[in-house]
Amino acid sequence: MDKILRIDMGAEGGPKATTVPTGEYSGLGGRALTSAIVSKEIPPACHPLSAENKLIIAPGLLSGTTSAMSGRISVGSKSPLTGGIKESNAGGQPSQVLARLGYAAIVLEGKPKGDDIYKIFINKDGITITPDNSLKMLGNYSVVEKMKAEHGHKIACISVGQAGEMRLLAASIAFTDTELRPTRHAGRGGTGAVMGSKGVKIIVLDDTGTTMRQPKDPNKFKEANKKWIAGLQSHGVTGQALPTYGTNVLTNIINEAGGYPTYNFKEGRFAGAVKISGEVEADLETKRGGLATHGCHRGCVIRCSGIYNDKDGHYLTKQPEYETVWAHGGECGIDDMDTIAMLDFLEDDIGLDTIETGVTIGVTMEAGLLKFGDGEGAINLVREIGKGSPLGRIIGSGAAVTGKVFGVERVPVVKGQALPAYDPRAVQGIGVTYATSPMGADHTAGYAVATNILGVGGTVDPLKPGGQVQLSRNLQIATAFIDSMGMCIFTAFAILDQPETFQALLDLVNACHGLEMTAADTVEYGKRVLKMERDFNARAGFTKEQDRLPSFFRSQPVGPHNVTFEVNDEELDQVFNW
Amino acid sequence: MDKILRIDMGAEGGPKATTVPTGEYSGLGGRALTSAIVSKEIPPACHPLSAENKLIIAPGLLSGTTSAMSGRISVGSKSPLTGGIKESNAGGQPSQVLARLGYAAIVLEGKPKGDDIYKIFINKDGITITPDNSLKMLGNYSVVEKMKAEHGHKIACISVGQAGEMRLLAASIAFTDTELRPTRHAGRGGTGAVMGSKGVKIIVLDDTGTTMRQPKDPNKFKEANKKWIAGLQSHGVTGQALPTYGTNVLTNIINEAGGYPTYNFKEGRFAGAVKISGEVEADLETKRGGLATHGCHRGCVIRCSGIYNDKDGHYLTKQPEYETVWAHGGECGIDDMDTIAMLDFLEDDIGLDTIETGVTIGVTMEAGLLKFGDGEGAINLVREIGKGSPLGRIIGSGAAVTGKVFGVERVPVVKGQALPAYDPRAVQGIGVTYATSPMGADHTAGYAVATNILGVGGTVDPLKPGGQVQLSRNLQIATAFIDSMGMCIFTAFAILDQPETFQALLDLVNACHGLEMTAADTVEYGKRVLKMERDFNARAGFTKEQDRLPSFFRSQPVGPHNVTFEVNDEELDQVFNW
Repeated sequence: MDKILRIDMGAEGGPKATTVPTGEYSGLGGRALTSAIVSKEIPPACHPLSAENKLIIAPGLLSGTTSAMSGRISVGSKSPLTGGIKESNAGGQPSQVLARLGYAAIVLEGKPKGDDIYKIFINKDGITITPDNSLKMLGNYSVVEKMKAEHGHKIACISVGQAGEMRLLAASIAFTDTELRPTRHAGRGGTGAVMGSKGVKIIVLDDTGTTMRQPKDPNKFKEANKKWIAGLQSHGVTGQALPTYGTNVLTNIINEAGGYPTYNFKEGRFAGAVKISGEVEADLETKRGGLATHGCHRGCVIRCSGIYNDKDGHYLTKQPEYETVWAHGGECGIDDMDTIAMLDFLEDDIGLDTIETGVTIGVTMEAGLLKFGDGEGAINLVREIGKGSPLGRIIGSGAAVTGKVFGVERVPVVKGQALPAYDPRAVQGIGVTYATSPMGADHTAGYAVATNILGVGGTVDPLKPGGQVQLSRNLQIATAFIDSMGMCIFTAFAILDQPETFQALLDLVNACHGLEMTAADTVEYGKRVLKMERDFNARAGFTKEQDRLPSFFRSQPVGPHNVTFEVNDEELDQVFNW
Repeated sequence: MDKILRIDMGAEGGPKATTVPTGEYSGLGGRALTSAIVSKEIPPACHPLSAENKLIIAPGLLSGTTSAMSGRISVGSKSPLTGGIKESNAGGQPSQVLARLGYAAIVLEGKPKGDDIYKIFINKDGITITPDNSLKMLGNYSVVEKMKAEHGHKIACISVGQAGEMRLLAASIAFTDTELRPTRHAGRGGTGAVMGSKGVKIIVLDDTGTTMRQPKDPNKFKEANKKWIAGLQSHGVTGQALPTYGTNVLTNIINEAGGYPTYNFKEGRFAGAVKISGEVEADLETKRGGLATHGCHRGCVIRCSGIYNDKDGHYLTKQPEYETVWAHGGECGIDDMDTIAMLDFLEDDIGLDTIETGVTIGVTMEAGLLKFGDGEGAINLVREIGKGSPLGRIIGSGAAVTGKVFGVERVPVVKGQALPAYDPRAVQGIGVTYATSPMGADHTAGYAVATNILGVGGTVDPLKPGGQVQLSRNLQIATAFIDSMGMCIFTAFAILDQPETFQALLDLVNACHGLEMTAADTVEYGKRVLKMERDFNARAGFTKEQDRLPSFFRSQPVGPHNVTFEVNDEELDQVFNW
């Protein structure tokens, strides 16, 4: 973890890999590292698909160790979707494997001249970069299968599907899970298009012959990890709700709270919600011989994922997450779980952000292209993306572009990125995060739903503006720190409620790196990350005017609470005025 | 001209017209008036297709009088294409007719609830607004024919084609010419989409029973107009070049200067230029029984237009202008005049900005969708727009959106608007205007080509950065004034070179309105307009980072001079620091 792998895809004579010390980036991991490199090295005015843009893939500071939940990975770039900085976060195996191989980050730079596409193989002996046009326009599942045939089953893969190759704005980057399936995605912000523009189809990692990363103080680390796991397992959300039902436990909760965006953010409750709830989903999974509880990476103890089989008991997809179920469910008026699972599979395979794609389908329904509730139409639309037809390319370009192409006024985006699964009028704290996060609308950037709805980390009335700015600010700072550790954001539920669990995390970091970080230091760390991100965006031309929700959230009340977004602009402008 | 016609298209019970005094807007005409209303009345953050946006159509301060060249009209709005303020300027008859009817502006406000489309009829007796769904998805030529059948031939029309109804970002608004053909367009910035979003298909003006507007000092006015006309007729550009060959006289000149953007701005000279030059075009027009010299509105003495007949001698379109010929010619590698004329006809009929559409076709060629030079492919692509197919909708959304949908890096736009027909590397002054105009890339906003290439108003070396900022600044200020008078921008050639012609313009304004404006006052007037426009954009979230050319103009030199754009960012930021 003291070296960075830089691959110049545009080097004379073909792609060239160089391993360099972390140098000035030492001490930074995950999001802190990707955002530092983006902020320092990428010209803010560059075209996101140009040779000047870079794609940075970085495990967290704790990834590759034995600490639980440390398998998240950060992908950084100038976003083709937002035009601003992007850190897109994923689970799966590659974070641990990359860390064990000793890399703090892979940085893809430059751009090859021709149309060849490349596979990159990395193991303890080094790096091999090979053009392989037989991989062209394969889906993620197929390309991973090919790699398994070539390299065996002890690998972990990072790949793009057809969407990334086509450089579509909603293109994701897929990370394989414990079963070597491409089901974990850095979904948001179109980082797949950047990887596609670099001509890289897949990065294959093999950590055979490496060992777990050794902490500086193994005993203290081991002790802290025990407390860490115990804390996670004793909290209601991370110990019970998420393992049992997965993230989709939220469908009934958010729907009940009146914050479940329905029919392109027209209503706050969906009549069909119960049919696509986590409870129904888990039941179906168990009945069909899938799994209702499953971790996306080794070392996960929350295990919010699952395996979703089709009616015949064959694997269809991993358990679709709450935001995915919602994006194709209530947002599009679809209440059939199998339809949603098929959409999840297709989008994983083609390599698409499920939130962006679902919201985009909702926008086409608003435009009259499909009727709300037309599941078959939605599936056909996503298949079009894989084919690269003009219609498919529009949808694959995300909600903002699709809204422009079809002349739609109600387009739920901030900084060009689609709003996730919580209506900002009924959950005003998350509205502050959507509006102000440097990432564009992103629930994970400061998950105020926890406090507004779940009562985690205190209580703040979701329907009123009071306290939301402070809530979002604190969560955005904390999240920037957690994202830098490689820790799953769901650990925050336990951290927010249990001081001893937060202390366990601090102990893990300190024992691993020989540091003496305090709680106050983590706040400074988070602020430093956000400051770099905001600075990049400012240099890219963003102002406070982009820290706003679409105006219809202020002018059109949403039922059942009949509320509008009430946090005013002056308050929004105070989020980063700490 | 002392009243404004406001039509609330979203009023309860149906559209409602109200006539109000000009009030605080008194003394403002054309662009000054549209920009003042946009700046004061439109929320900068509103969606351009929402009820909050407005469409303002305003003749100039001298329109409707006997003064020569005063038939230009301004269309203002928040632009769906750029997201900033827009003044789009057109010729044709409606400016004079609207002024004679006594209206300083028509303001379309609100938005109807249903899908009905409306026609608006205005004569000396008042305003009639009627839903007429038989007009749906008619081209501009057809809808004007229907109005001729209903209202006779003494009308002037303002309409949108299919593109405006579909609210496409490249949609124009058509203004009929002296032959009552919809050939004069407020092309830039997608104002047609705003008119479409208001549910207005066509505005029919009938000035029967009205008289010419009477100047306050008729004798002084008459005298000034004589000098004005004499000045225009004695200048080489306005008296000879433009009448003889039209604006397309520029093809050979700009190509020779190495500033003729070719193959999506890859080269500065086009081998096929001579085949689509003004000389060839004028010759064809004359041979086929068309016209090489023709005015777009009564009172025009420059007469840069013409009539273009097909091979069989039947009317095909008005004489395609230089920028139109270029956008489909060199930019797309097409060197066939009849193909370009057909594209011009189709785009007038569907209601599209020819610059935006041509550049967009070039971008699809860069993407590999068509080959450069494929004229038939280009025609089919434009027909797709009229049909509203997904592919057509992409193209009709302009170059920036098309570049995103097809993953193209080299997209020549500023503020989302396509660059016109002069390469900013070989004509650096116009590059300053492209980068800094509040309108997005727009040659008419400060036509530095005049001085850089034609030697009008002095000389400034086109290939070097020195003097370009001052040149563009002065021209942008002067243009804002001229655009507010309703004067054709081509009068600037004579104004710049002949002090007595500029004085004649001042005398016209003063005699008309009983003013005592000096040259210095016109500068203040222009600055005031630009200041309002910049202020609106700032409130809409624009910063200096949007006052930039795409970075490839700095990194990729263009032949034959092998130059890049050399005016640096700090200099660009001084344009409005007067």
